Amino acid sequence: MEQSVRVGVYGASGYAGLDLVEILARHPYVDLKFAVSNTYAGQAVPHTNLTYAKTDAVALADVDLVFLALPHGVSAQVAHEAVEAGVAVIDLSADLRLDTAESYQEWYGHEHPYPEMLDAPYGLPEIHRASILGKRVVAAPGCYPTTTLLGLYPLLKHGWLKSSRPIIVDAKSGVSGAGREPKPTTHFVEVFGNFSPYNPGRSHRHVGEIEQEIHKLDDSVGTLIFTPHLLPVDRGLMASIYVELSEGHTSDQAQELYEETYSQEPLVDVLPPKAQATLRHVVRTNGAAISLTPVTPEYLHITSVTDNLRKGASGQAVQCFNLMFGFPETTALI
Amino acid sequence: MEQSVRVGVYGASGYAGLDLVEILARHPYVDLKFAVSNTYAGQAVPHTNLTYAKTDAVALADVDLVFLALPHGVSAQVAHEAVEAGVAVIDLSADLRLDTAESYQEWYGHEHPYPEMLDAPYGLPEIHRASILGKRVVAAPGCYPTTTLLGLYPLLKHGWLKSSRPIIVDAKSGVSGAGREPKPTTHFVEVFGNFSPYNPGRSHRHVGEIEQEIHKLDDSVGTLIFTPHLLPVDRGLMASIYVELSEGHTSDQAQELYEETYSQEPLVDVLPPKAQATLRHVVRTNGAAISLTPVTPEYLHITSVTDNLRKGASGQAVQCFNLMFGFPETTALI
Amino acid sequence: MEQSVRVGVYGASGYAGLDLVEILARHPYVDLKFAVSNTYAGQAVPHTNLTYAKTDAVALADVDLVFLALPHGVSAQVAHEAVEAGVAVIDLSADLRLDTAESYQEWYGHEHPYPEMLDAPYGLPEIHRASILGKRVVAAPGCYPTTTLLGLYPLLKHGWLKSSRPIIVDAKSGVSGAGREPKPTTHFVEVFGNFSPYNPGRSHRHVGEIEQEIHKLDDSVGTLIFTPHLLPVDRGLMASIYVELSEGHTSDQAQELYEETYSQEPLVDVLPPKAQATLRHVVRTNGAAISLTPVTPEYLHITSVTDNLRKGASGQAVQCFNLMFGFPETTALI
Amino acid sequence: MEQSVRVGVYGASGYAGLDLVEILARHPYVDLKFAVSNTYAGQAVPHTNLTYAKTDAVALADVDLVFLALPHGVSAQVAHEAVEAGVAVIDLSADLRLDTAESYQEWYGHEHPYPEMLDAPYGLPEIHRASILGKRVVAAPGCYPTTTLLGLYPLLKHGWLKSSRPIIVDAKSGVSGAGREPKPTTHFVEVFGNFSPYNPGRSHRHVGEIEQEIHKLDDSVGTLIFTPHLLPVDRGLMASIYVELSEGHTSDQAQELYEETYSQEPLVDVLPPKAQATLRHVVRTNGAAISLTPVTPEYLHITSVTDNLRKGASGQAVQCFNLMFGFPETTALI
Repeated sequence: MEQSVRVGVYGASGYAGLDLVEILARHPYVDLKFAVSNTYAGQAVPHTNLTYAKTDAVALADVDLVFLALPHGVSAQVAHEAVEAGVAVIDLSADLRLDTAESYQEWYGHEHPYPEMLDAPYGLPEIHRASILGKRVVAAPGCYPTTTLLGLYPLLKHGWLKSSRPIIVDAKSGVSGAGREPKPTTHFVEVFGNFSPYNPGRSHRHVGEIEQEIHKLDDSVGTLIFTPHLLPVDRGLMASIYVELSEGHTSDQAQELYEETYSQEPLVDVLPPKAQATLRHVVRTNGAAISLTPVTPEYLHITSVTDNLRKGASGQAVQCFNLMFGFPETTALI
Repeated sequence: MEQSVRVGVYGASGYAGLDLVEILARHPYVDLKFAVSNTYAGQAVPHTNLTYAKTDAVALADVDLVFLALPHGVSAQVAHEAVEAGVAVIDLSADLRLDTAESYQEWYGHEHPYPEMLDAPYGLPEIHRASILGKRVVAAPGCYPTTTLLGLYPLLKHGWLKSSRPIIVDAKSGVSGAGREPKPTTHFVEVFGNFSPYNPGRSHRHVGEIEQEIHKLDDSVGTLIFTPHLLPVDRGLMASIYVELSEGHTSDQAQELYEETYSQEPLVDVLPPKAQATLRHVVRTNGAAISLTPVTPEYLHITSVTDNLRKGASGQAVQCFNLMFGFPETTALI
Repeated sequence: MEQSVRVGVYGASGYAGLDLVEILARHPYVDLKFAVSNTYAGQAVPHTNLTYAKTDAVALADVDLVFLALPHGVSAQVAHEAVEAGVAVIDLSADLRLDTAESYQEWYGHEHPYPEMLDAPYGLPEIHRASILGKRVVAAPGCYPTTTLLGLYPLLKHGWLKSSRPIIVDAKSGVSGAGREPKPTTHFVEVFGNFSPYNPGRSHRHVGEIEQEIHKLDDSVGTLIFTPHLLPVDRGLMASIYVELSEGHTSDQAQELYEETYSQEPLVDVLPPKAQATLRHVVRTNGAAISLTPVTPEYLHITSVTDNLRKGASGQAVQCFNLMFGFPETTALI
Repeated sequence: MEQSVRVGVYGASGYAGLDLVEILARHPYVDLKFAVSNTYAGQAVPHTNLTYAKTDAVALADVDLVFLALPHGVSAQVAHEAVEAGVAVIDLSADLRLDTAESYQEWYGHEHPYPEMLDAPYGLPEIHRASILGKRVVAAPGCYPTTTLLGLYPLLKHGWLKSSRPIIVDAKSGVSGAGREPKPTTHFVEVFGNFSPYNPGRSHRHVGEIEQEIHKLDDSVGTLIFTPHLLPVDRGLMASIYVELSEGHTSDQAQELYEETYSQEPLVDVLPPKAQATLRHVVRTNGAAISLTPVTPEYLHITSVTDNLRKGASGQAVQCFNLMFGFPETTALI
């Protein structure tokens, strides 16, 4: 029997935090020491015997690792403190995901407080597994980047995309992706029976992060056109991706490419030809599902889906945790 | 052609206010002069050429009547100012609905600022039409009281309820009834796929008001047991009412009683035997629908439905307006 | 390690059947041999390596026990064949739940084909555990009876209900309770934004079954008034129960009574005072939750909730299975 | 006062038929003589004093015009009979929309019974107004073509699209678009909380019709890539369109182009820059709303929305009716 890792969770009462605690509570090698929520301090933490604690009521000295399900800006501060205290970090915010301070400034509108922390590996195991293994600080990506990048990865890795052609991503997210804090845009009456685009074109903050990761794999591709939409469902995320293939490749060959690329991935399901990925395939699971539609020989339509709170947040963070500490990668996830 | 009434609306950007403005905009005898919303000041008012104005940017001198779709407490203040300025008032809040200052203190937890205003008639035309005609100040009741009282009225009026027996009302409301301000309880993720009781038993503020009106019609009946629930829909309200009949009356005679009582009411639809009233019967209309199920000879089950924002708020307010100014009662409502 | 029980499921592609297979697939002592569905024959059975088989393609000789998630009428036939073949039976239909052939004829409108099978115990473990232990044929009750009876049980067992007074149950069910076969009443457009009573009063078939079980515990109580409603959610069931207490008992004592009665029940959660049971408490779990509201000293309001497909169907069937074969009662359920 | 037109509706109980009757019932120049529904024959027709009649119980001689809200295949037969009887026709099915018998054979898989009827004008008034005026037979297009074509029209009309480049349409429809007949795919439980693509790529039957209309306006553009999705809402349709502009035009000039093109169109609303069109803008109205997002100078993202049952079906049919008979075009529509 392996020894348990002592773990703390910050931002434990947000939607990603709630799912994270639920997963950790059944993880055989996790000893959950605290769950921080300033809003819900004193209330019971579901799936545990803990109560939520305020930030200043917990001690980093009590844990080996912290998960940070905090807003960007706040997260970098806690991550820095944790590292200073010798505590490992899995950050679910965007604070450690961009590679340069310039990029962070561009997309988040303020200076990064600890640019030296930006060397944390990008915690998408199916693409960056080797760089996550055994690491002490990992930046786990969120729902839009994860779902989009998994949908594009086989094409990017093998150079199948036509250079300089745009990648079009029409994305749809359940409302939990907007966070638990009540806002006019998440009021039941505003969402019910509605469907809305937001931050279209290239204005969403995740465009910078997604392009950064795309270009690491293939820097010849064109612009990312990315339109998120708000779906009237609680959870689930779909990225509908439209791409043009480079010469020498045809869309009907994509099925085999995807099946091969993901053949050893327990958390990515490439659906058979003609099947279409839907939210139902992944909601409340820790995996992704991908379906492929050859439209014309040059044009491929890819549908990639995840649960935004699981493979798009907490499940992925635990997958990184397993890699960092040498546990079987899908422990507590399937 | 009748002369137009110059009208102002306070609380015009709340859900009841929005529906109210929509109805007034098509009312042939209304000249809508202003729509007050401190939150949305400067933005366009749907269905009109106006923009929302702040409270201090409008003048009571410009109007003949104001509709107040304001929170209780605030509403009495504006009502008082209006009356002082010689302006007629239709108050959609609870501030003028209770008959005594003691009752108001009991249910709202603070002293009523203008107890002399509590003589305003209770604006439920099907029950109190005569007292509304030509009045200058009317207290229009909201969704729970209206739907419950319409469901009980024929029995109360004719003394069919067994004395001292409780009246059980299991009520269900769409989320717009909770107001437009974002709250944890109205977050889409909290409501979606859920169904919840709240303020059960006798703890909801409307219990006092409903009992007051019940007792005016029949003061021999027993306790009101009233449980509101939050339905995962945007609008619509159902009161499921269970009552015991007094001797000499059987539940199978109720159908005829209701049909007769409401035979001249254009906004109350008594469904035929066996049919069941559903939200679909009334959503986005200004009427109520009622169905009757004789369970045993003594026990009757009544289902009464309204659109909580229409017959349960704004539509009813306009119905009162029509009565106050002598217009055909259903003008702009059907 | 205990030996596995070889199991077959009939009606495996219905909503209850789907949940049942999902639970059985993770049951450590179950060897699922076949899953029957004439509609989906040949397609993959989720959570297993099986494909759905037609009725005539499976052999009772291959299994030790069958679960029957079939329509009433059909179920009794298969149950009889199974018993003849020496195979144990857990019937999720209503075919074995009523105690007499007369009662079956009354509520289902046709003669019971095998009245001798009506001695099967009623599979609600919290009430009838002793009679289920080690049995070969069990009639597992469905969502409305289970949720209602669990909500009433402590009062009935201890004689707290006032004699001859009606028990009022205003019930609400998610749409999966209406079955998977497409019908006008389950069309998305008909249900969305709507809320509807159906089979009100005493016309729903489960009235007979619920009263039968009520009267076994306390035959002095009055009529059951039972109104089911269709909720616009996929799963979850609430029974809102209104009762009058007998002399010597007051509603504020009920909390303690319920806590004591259910103190050893792992699948029934009595919420603390003031808390209200909601669908969210139980959806996708195998348990029930109950909250109590003392309205007046004599009147008690009880809210009882289950997942209609779990504690209200498949989870309960597996709970019975565990009792029949001597496995820990909550195996595969928590 | 103009003379009324005597009108009959076939397929009057389907979702488009229901909305159509509702609009016609308030049309000042329509005398609705019959509403055909074989399924609901004998039941009351909402918003009218009629009852649904079977096909063989109505007489074409009683009307001047028929609306056909029938399935394709069936519709052409009734259209032909009507024309033979000297009755004008507005067909809401696809039977008269394609220009050639070959095209119909290709997309619908069977021979067109009356190819001579394919010269009916395509009833999208904003594009083909002149050809509809005064006509006796019109083929009114449905939701996907209407919403897509309105979103593209200014670009196509003025030659702004880059030749040979694909037009990508990621479309989303409310469930009423799938018809009122219950099907597994429209079962509430299957749709609730889900989001699904269907008939992706170029497999949806409307691809042929949309391309036909696109090429009439600009035959140099490339392939249509069209993916419909099923949204968990009752009504509303969004076409998210991604296009590449030809040289000499930049995406930031599109706003002015659209505003000018539609400046005289009462039923098309071009939203101001930065605003995003949502279902809420159009649900239960007879208009379309369009928003434009310049992504890069070459790439434009267009969001076009309609109510699939109104501007995407019945509202548009009435708009055509008004043009055919010389009534003001928006009579009964705004």
